[in-house]
Amino acid sequence: MNSLKLLIDEFARLPGLGKKSASRIVYFLLKADDRRSQTLGQAILDLKKNLRECSSCGNYTDTDPCQICTDPGRDHSLLCVVEEAKDILTIEATNEYHGLYHVLGGVLSPLNGIGPSELRLRELVARLKKPVSELIIATNPTVEGDTTALYISKTVGHLYIPVSRLALGLPVGGDIEYADKLTIGRALKGRTRL
Amino acid sequence: MNSLKLLIDEFARLPGLGKKSASRIVYFLLKADDRRSQTLGQAILDLKKNLRECSSCGNYTDTDPCQICTDPGRDHSLLCVVEEAKDILTIEATNEYHGLYHVLGGVLSPLNGIGPSELRLRELVARLKKPVSELIIATNPTVEGDTTALYISKTVGHLYIPVSRLALGLPVGGDIEYADKLTIGRALKGRTRL
Repeated sequence: MNSLKLLIDEFARLPGLGKKSASRIVYFLLKADDRRSQTLGQAILDLKKNLRECSSCGNYTDTDPCQICTDPGRDHSLLCVVEEAKDILTIEATNEYHGLYHVLGGVLSPLNGIGPSELRLRELVARLKKPVSELIIATNPTVEGDTTALYISKTVGHLYIPVSRLALGLPVGGDIEYADKLTIGRALKGRTRL
Repeated sequence: MNSLKLLIDEFARLPGLGKKSASRIVYFLLKADDRRSQTLGQAILDLKKNLRECSSCGNYTDTDPCQICTDPGRDHSLLCVVEEAKDILTIEATNEYHGLYHVLGGVLSPLNGIGPSELRLRELVARLKKPVSELIIATNPTVEGDTTALYISKTVGHLYIPVSRLALGLPVGGDIEYADKLTIGRALKGRTRL
């Protein structure tokens, strides 16, 4: 019973998983093919062994520089700034962006002791020495994300690079009735011509 | 990127996890302490190495017979029949039952080719040779669970052991308004005196 409980506890500590979903997963692994648990276990063990930060964009990668930074099919003059590496995956899933990325590693948050020097801002300014046609800031639409976006746009102001920010508005498939006032306000302000 | 995607895919194959929750977990592991992923990975690898079926009740265990079967503090004359080993965990969590268990390993399901010989029924009959004061059948309240419960009670009929089944009725904290007709019907039939 003890190795079982140990593993259930370990799973239950992962984000989004509780005791019930954790034990469901463990019993699934017990019933499943041996290879399933071997692959999963080994992949978790190898995770940090194989992965490092891309010295250019800060994404997690097997090779340095990463696949995105070395892809000749992408637009190397386009730079998208994201808070965390996982945001890259989300944006990549849209298939709408074909430039490069830059991971900040967080947002400005004085209360949590995160100032400009805690973020990968110096690396960003260094990358902007190469010609860049547009800098897209894709921080989250939160107070910290907005502040960080503003700070970046001021920091790079002297380089005269066009700086943009993701549009704010109604989510696709959403209902105006259920949208909050702030979102509707931003959607009105940012309305586009038909 | 590849070891990342591999691990996200592996997590996404687990029950209850989708692509989004899987990537959330993987990025959590990347940010977390090294020991966290080492413990989890190793525990998954060791899972099947350490665990076997208890030769008595069929529960997953490190030692044979299992902790429950060898616990002198439990009532060894009480036997609770469950479909799967994971049901033991659920019943143990109630702290209301202090007897032993017997895992069937499934339910009778002719359509899926599961007959009496596919379940641990012979082992159950063998265990009933020792004096048993009550046999509690805790299969799920489904057609297959009901059929299996009926089959077991007939199979052990000649032993004159009291056989019971978990009560059917309203879930605690539930609302009659939202209960289905069948459940309310069973709750009425099984009503208890105040």
